[in-house]
Amino acid sequence: MNGHPLAVALVHSPVVDKRGDRVVSAVTNLDLHDIARTARTYGVDRFYVVTPVAEQQVLINRILRHWRAGHGAGYNPHRGEALSLIEIVPSLEEAVSGWSREIGEKALPVLTGARRSDGVSFDQCRQLRQDHPLMLVFGTGWGLAPELFDQGWPVLEPIRGVGDYNHLPVRAATAIILDRLHVEPWITITSGPADHGGIRN
Amino acid sequence: MNGHPLAVALVHSPVVDKRGDRVVSAVTNLDLHDIARTARTYGVDRFYVVTPVAEQQVLINRILRHWRAGHGAGYNPHRGEALSLIEIVPSLEEAVSGWSREIGEKALPVLTGARRSDGVSFDQCRQLRQDHPLMLVFGTGWGLAPELFDQGWPVLEPIRGVGDYNHLPVRAATAIILDRLHVEPWITITSGPADHGGIRN
Repeated sequence: MNGHPLAVALVHSPVVDKRGDRVVSAVTNLDLHDIARTARTYGVDRFYVVTPVAEQQVLINRILRHWRAGHGAGYNPHRGEALSLIEIVPSLEEAVSGWSREIGEKALPVLTGARRSDGVSFDQCRQLRQDHPLMLVFGTGWGLAPELFDQGWPVLEPIRGVGDYNHLPVRAATAIILDRLHVEPWITITSGPADHGGIRN
Repeated sequence: MNGHPLAVALVHSPVVDKRGDRVVSAVTNLDLHDIARTARTYGVDRFYVVTPVAEQQVLINRILRHWRAGHGAGYNPHRGEALSLIEIVPSLEEAVSGWSREIGEKALPVLTGARRSDGVSFDQCRQLRQDHPLMLVFGTGWGLAPELFDQGWPVLEPIRGVGDYNHLPVRAATAIILDRLHVEPWITITSGPADHGGIRN
């Protein structure tokens, strides 16, 4: 893989609900497991779970202890190995600054969202990875709050399937995006029909 | 996309547990939601949930009713749209025969597994799709039971990430595999280093 480290952030605030109202979403146990396992598979260096809610932070720590050191660690050590990537932080800003400090280099957040059309392509994102340590930022609920898109950070183009259904679970989106960014550079994309949306370019 | 229909089957029996013992795994609510939403995104025509346990079948039907016609249908119609792909069957054989009957053509099961090394490549699987209606078969627990691999059905190569951690959640594996099979035929893969495992060939 590339020399630059890679992080993932799962944001529970600020996100929006289905009406577009700003909410703090609850942490879902399976998000932690699934995204940690996928991140571990694709060599991600850190998985930031962003929630400002103290009770949720306590809950996550309890889950992590179970799998890292408690009964779960004996039952299934692979889980602890994946979950050890997790760092709990109260805000995305602290994830970015904390990780930049840790790696000694300025990390570049790349936002994701199913309803964005102004994004960088997967190919451009792979190029960005050559030059920067990236932090892929995923929103829970109905997506990242609008103000995050005003920071000047790159936004990754949405995953397009067949037709216009764009309601992938964040767990699936994370898996697909990490897999696509993992494409080796000698895979070249030749030109396709002009009217095609461009699933992978 | 290709003309041939595509199905997914999620098998809860026969599968193995972490000791390799044959077990019937319990249906996980989030598997149904995640895989249905991913399947719907990638234009999959049917999602077979395979369990011989009558109580589990009742449970799944209750979940489906909630989202297709109950409170959930009003709250989030996209879920019902995805979950309507689900068909509950007691065995993989019935999934294959039922679906073959439905589409009027013999469906070809393609097995998946994280620990197989004898499989067809993703590229070969895309070729198979040109000629057959495929049913991608995923195991829960610690994977499909060995006897399923003795039927002569093609086995898809495992997803390889970075390193040797191969414990992707079935929800993530389904998403990655459907995304990879969705690659348009004008994407060509040029030769890479000889010692590379070949993530996408």
